[in-house]
Amino acid sequence: MKVLVAGGAGFIGSHLIDALIDKGHEVICVDNYFIGSNKNIQHLFNNPKFSMYEEDLTDFEVLKGIFEKEKPEYVFHMAANSDIQKSALNPQIEYKNTYTTTFHLLECMRIYDIKKFFFCSTSAVYGDAHGEEMYENYAPLEPISYYGACKLGSESLIHAYSYMNHMHSLIFRFPNVIGPRLTHGVIFDFIKKLKKNPKELEILGDGLQTKPYLYVLDLINCIMENYEKVEEGVTIYNVGDHSSTSVTDIAKMVCEVMGLEDVAFHYTGGKAGWKGDVPVFMYNLDKIHSTGWKASMTSDEAVYKTIEAVLQK
Amino acid sequence: MKVLVAGGAGFIGSHLIDALIDKGHEVICVDNYFIGSNKNIQHLFNNPKFSMYEEDLTDFEVLKGIFEKEKPEYVFHMAANSDIQKSALNPQIEYKNTYTTTFHLLECMRIYDIKKFFFCSTSAVYGDAHGEEMYENYAPLEPISYYGACKLGSESLIHAYSYMNHMHSLIFRFPNVIGPRLTHGVIFDFIKKLKKNPKELEILGDGLQTKPYLYVLDLINCIMENYEKVEEGVTIYNVGDHSSTSVTDIAKMVCEVMGLEDVAFHYTGGKAGWKGDVPVFMYNLDKIHSTGWKASMTSDEAVYKTIEAVLQK
Repeated sequence: MKVLVAGGAGFIGSHLIDALIDKGHEVICVDNYFIGSNKNIQHLFNNPKFSMYEEDLTDFEVLKGIFEKEKPEYVFHMAANSDIQKSALNPQIEYKNTYTTTFHLLECMRIYDIKKFFFCSTSAVYGDAHGEEMYENYAPLEPISYYGACKLGSESLIHAYSYMNHMHSLIFRFPNVIGPRLTHGVIFDFIKKLKKNPKELEILGDGLQTKPYLYVLDLINCIMENYEKVEEGVTIYNVGDHSSTSVTDIAKMVCEVMGLEDVAFHYTGGKAGWKGDVPVFMYNLDKIHSTGWKASMTSDEAVYKTIEAVLQK
Repeated sequence: MKVLVAGGAGFIGSHLIDALIDKGHEVICVDNYFIGSNKNIQHLFNNPKFSMYEEDLTDFEVLKGIFEKEKPEYVFHMAANSDIQKSALNPQIEYKNTYTTTFHLLECMRIYDIKKFFFCSTSAVYGDAHGEEMYENYAPLEPISYYGACKLGSESLIHAYSYMNHMHSLIFRFPNVIGPRLTHGVIFDFIKKLKKNPKELEILGDGLQTKPYLYVLDLINCIMENYEKVEEGVTIYNVGDHSSTSVTDIAKMVCEVMGLEDVAFHYTGGKAGWKGDVPVFMYNLDKIHSTGWKASMTSDEAVYKTIEAVLQK
């Protein structure tokens, strides 16, 4: 099958392409290299099953041209702004890179009559549920970040497009995803800071922010086990693990793996690391577990493995 | 207080402006006259409390200029595509006129530190609840029209902007609103068709589509009773009446008021009038009734009064 992966040069997208190529699919990658990097996909450049378009999904006419030429059977939408701290200062980033990219892909699918769609959504659509267990039909959905708002807006578009055009759409709501090819986030920051000054570490918030971290290859397995089962309409799954890791624990793990002792932790204070951050959340995972998938790693194991991967880069 | 009414030359917006001016407010109207008409507001052109900008809200720089100059205290967002049948064939209309207008207004409010926001949302955010009573926290919200999707996406933006910027936002979810200055919809269509051919009437669907119709001045009263009470964060109300009217009954009422007898009704068939239409829905209105407001007219009364208003035009 010919598939299009939007945002395929990014952290998660590039791992997905590896898995899709392994499965024998022909992959069209569209990425503007804003956050994604050609390093993540350069091992595929000579593969006849792989084509790369360095283009911006916000340019509708260019995207339409790619669809006109390639006519993929399945579209995986992995493109979005993924740096929530950054867009907190400039919401235009989310309007363009998170919402408009979804609208343009769905429009191309409508025009070229393409039925199968995968969308990576996020725990941020739930807003702050104040520790309540979030199951897929949890209400009300009140995102507190522009990122969460544009992802939820994208989900709304997917509902309407799927109904109006008989599309088969699969939405995964991810927690924090980590692993090789990661580009930013708390693990990244701590390593960078400790390389600069191995005696002290500034930690945003009170360090008690506690979230499930999912290893990227666990997520990719979950997509690969489920993408072909998708039915008409929209199917939404929370994807993650029940375990979680606090920010202070991540700091300790980074120090441990780097072989650093007696590092002084300084906390900036407050419950959230930054405005729009949800400090604690817990998924209900019954629905995704009922498909047979389960994360192979706990949140702590994923963090350890990611620290090693980032240090080896 | 100086207020800005976006979409103020439209059907609902222009009635709201009349009420705001009556209350003594200074009103800045921004409208591109796409659906709105200068006929709805020309009686205000010599009023020193009224200013009109014939501009498109999708032009961000122009809108920013208006905010920079006028610095309103309260923004009423009444601008949107309101012709759902039309955008079913061209979703770009909703992306631009319903979603992007919301984003641009919220961005201007963020930049110029404006805190008070009113947004007219819609029953279409609920999608097809298959006759279940829809209360404000009903889940899941799965819009089946591009219009509903872009209104729900707008609500998501309002949640994030309100949280991030301490805004006070009030969202009303309207059912079908009718009355003087109406520009399209079933009553309008029936009158037009019967003026052309008073012997026969084509009715979309099976005629059993049954919805609550709300008289526009009841809605305006509801806004005027509640807009000043808005608190930090987002407050959402369903607004309407528990009574409703079927499409076949509307056809009979139009014939009656027009003095037509023995009109042959022809049905196109199917449960919905068009794809994306929700044929039957029922609001839970406990929350808005708890504020003391109640519609003064039933759905049937609103329909009769609107038929008369449209015929008198």
